[in-house]
Amino acid sequence: MPDIYFEDFAAGQEFDLGSRVLDRAAIVAFAAEFDPQPFHIDDDAAAQSIYGGLIASGWHTGSIYMRLLCDGLLLRVHSMGSPGVDEMRWLGPVRPGDTLSAKLLIDSARASKSKPDRGIVQTVGEMRNQNGDLVLTLKSALLVKRR
Amino acid sequence: MPDIYFEDFAAGQEFDLGSRVLDRAAIVAFAAEFDPQPFHIDDDAAAQSIYGGLIASGWHTGSIYMRLLCDGLLLRVHSMGSPGVDEMRWLGPVRPGDTLSAKLLIDSARASKSKPDRGIVQTVGEMRNQNGDLVLTLKSALLVKRR
Repeated sequence: MPDIYFEDFAAGQEFDLGSRVLDRAAIVAFAAEFDPQPFHIDDDAAAQSIYGGLIASGWHTGSIYMRLLCDGLLLRVHSMGSPGVDEMRWLGPVRPGDTLSAKLLIDSARASKSKPDRGIVQTVGEMRNQNGDLVLTLKSALLVKRR
Repeated sequence: MPDIYFEDFAAGQEFDLGSRVLDRAAIVAFAAEFDPQPFHIDDDAAAQSIYGGLIASGWHTGSIYMRLLCDGLLLRVHSMGSPGVDEMRWLGPVRPGDTLSAKLLIDSARASKSKPDRGIVQTVGEMRNQNGDLVLTLKSALLVKRR
């Protein structure tokens, strides 16, 4: 059950969200459903593309970040959803076998002026591969219930 | 095979990207894998949440937009990928049985200064449900090969 409220967040906090290995089958399955560009689903086409080999869809990478955020923090939060994503950057290729590790940094936490039951927590997330290369950054607000 | 190059894009163009029906099983399957918050996977919990019933994950909605973009335009484009998403807004709930229709507007198209083989096409996408309600907007740049 959720036990984290708006008042528990403060600028500067950092949360380790754990990691996930991404295999070739998962990359191709996601892309076949949502992003069937050749360099996401076809090894030969990918080898001849500017990426030099199969890479994960950025939507898959973003969705994996979301899962790590859920497991690592959000399922414990009295969340009231999110208005969206302020910026998502795909900074490097994600390839079969990569291990992706995510972190969340709290940028600010302020009470809502219009809705007294909630606060707005601005977050910056990042995900790195096993070599420490940054592959994703993501800025987003969370709406969180006040105590 | 792709037949659309950077030079074929111009500010003000609008592309109809078609539509997709989203059923309950798809909503729950996506969320169980990537965004297992109760209001995405559990009818009872969703009914008691601020959403009053099951809604799709915003990552699912974004991924469906990506698929419509692929089928409706991108697979015909000499694409060189995208650096990410500049803004994604989840403007209204997406519920089981909704039909989502997407459009793409070209905001600007300019040649890259640093890389003469490509241009940068700034896009604004939107998706509406069967009632005409806007459920998603998305701003993103496409990198497209020059002729």
